[in-house]
Amino acid sequence: MNYHETKIRVQYFETDCMGVVHHSNYIRYFEMGRTEMMRDLGFPYSAMENTGVKMPIILTECRYLFPATYDELLTIRTTIKEPISARIRFEYEIYNESGKQICTGAVELAFINAETQRPCRPPETLLKVVSSGTF
Amino acid sequence: MNYHETKIRVQYFETDCMGVVHHSNYIRYFEMGRTEMMRDLGFPYSAMENTGVKMPIILTECRYLFPATYDELLTIRTTIKEPISARIRFEYEIYNESGKQICTGAVELAFINAETQRPCRPPETLLKVVSSGTF
Amino acid sequence: MNYHETKIRVQYFETDCMGVVHHSNYIRYFEMGRTEMMRDLGFPYSAMENTGVKMPIILTECRYLFPATYDELLTIRTTIKEPISARIRFEYEIYNESGKQICTGAVELAFINAETQRPCRPPETLLKVVSSGTF
Amino acid sequence: MNYHETKIRVQYFETDCMGVVHHSNYIRYFEMGRTEMMRDLGFPYSAMENTGVKMPIILTECRYLFPATYDELLTIRTTIKEPISARIRFEYEIYNESGKQICTGAVELAFINAETQRPCRPPETLLKVVSSGTF
Repeated sequence: MNYHETKIRVQYFETDCMGVVHHSNYIRYFEMGRTEMMRDLGFPYSAMENTGVKMPIILTECRYLFPATYDELLTIRTTIKEPISARIRFEYEIYNESGKQICTGAVELAFINAETQRPCRPPETLLKVVSSGTF
Repeated sequence: MNYHETKIRVQYFETDCMGVVHHSNYIRYFEMGRTEMMRDLGFPYSAMENTGVKMPIILTECRYLFPATYDELLTIRTTIKEPISARIRFEYEIYNESGKQICTGAVELAFINAETQRPCRPPETLLKVVSSGTF
Repeated sequence: MNYHETKIRVQYFETDCMGVVHHSNYIRYFEMGRTEMMRDLGFPYSAMENTGVKMPIILTECRYLFPATYDELLTIRTTIKEPISARIRFEYEIYNESGKQICTGAVELAFINAETQRPCRPPETLLKVVSSGTF
Repeated sequence: MNYHETKIRVQYFETDCMGVVHHSNYIRYFEMGRTEMMRDLGFPYSAMENTGVKMPIILTECRYLFPATYDELLTIRTTIKEPISARIRFEYEIYNESGKQICTGAVELAFINAETQRPCRPPETLLKVVSSGTF
């Protein structure tokens, strides 16, 4: 199974008064993960929007296994396991500095024609880079 | 089925350059929903923490049905359908001003003894207010 | 001196691991303050954008006097002391539940014609509601 | 004049429905700038907290010169111009990818003994690394 990894540093403003990263920020980490994955595949999300296709989020899910704390360097592992159809599903695992898995999650996005605001096929370029992707 | 409702106003800083509320903020709206529900039940989360019990998040999930935009007044409907055990599951629906449902979701929290950092039983007060709750 | 007051509840996700509200959120509280002030004056910011005028931020400043903690009900006091010219300056004080002032600050915004992207005069309606405003 | 530079990528969730980075996020970028500066000086903020000294924010200010947009790679330039006393003042400039300055700002922090909650002298280590700092 291919996967992409990116590292992010936990910021002070992402922690809460329980002393750990607030759970809502994992959803943002997921976004950072797929953004860097798409960039490394040669098809950054900004290029996607230039093709006239928007990708609204249709589902997020996250299971929290272990807390993350201030200044930790986390590894976000992003992968695509299912074929891309009218939607694309990114799957996630996040690991802390000592290699412990802290969460698992998934995000699904649809493809929308920015002009008509209606569902559309995924751009061919996306299908190509993902299928050929050694990420 | 009992449920609790609270209203929140979409803030400018919660929107993104797609012109709609960023999907990560729904997870924060859910937190606002259960916070106000617990307060209205007479057992605010701050009182919970005073009993020495912390409630870390163990799961979040959200299906996005329709976008929300700046300055909309949203209704967060929060309910508890399953019995409270070692975890509590809050279920959510959010509606926009015209009554259209924009998402469905759920959040699960565990009960942790703040001193031992180990799982513990939910406070009796919580069980009482939830079971008797006409929220 | 006229001023407008609005109340906001400190959210869990706004606190940080020092146990208090993260300082960046005060800038967001200021936005909530002027949004509600404009709404109460009968000229909500969403109506402003409909006139074709955007109001980008040109300056923010905040002095932090005392920390705010989770679940506190804060009072944001917003006022306009200086005449509106090519820019509008909102001045702020925030108070906690016990009436203690926790910060002072200011935000300045310009007026930009959304079409030409160039500075423009403030909408007449804005000048009227602010000058006549008993807020 | 010595200064430190760090690069940050604008995230989707940091933009707003005006299509640019929300102004509150610059305050967070400033925090990221001084965090990386302190780390590169060999005295990360997490080490600071281990010495029993907390550094609450006492002032932030920012002048916004030019908007930043999604996915831009920004350069945060952080420097200390004034001697460190009971407070430390970090000064900032942020530049976009084409080298255009998009803002100027400053953040001041105090030194507080975490145990007594009273103002204290800055740690000697901090004074040394900053004065000798070729950052």
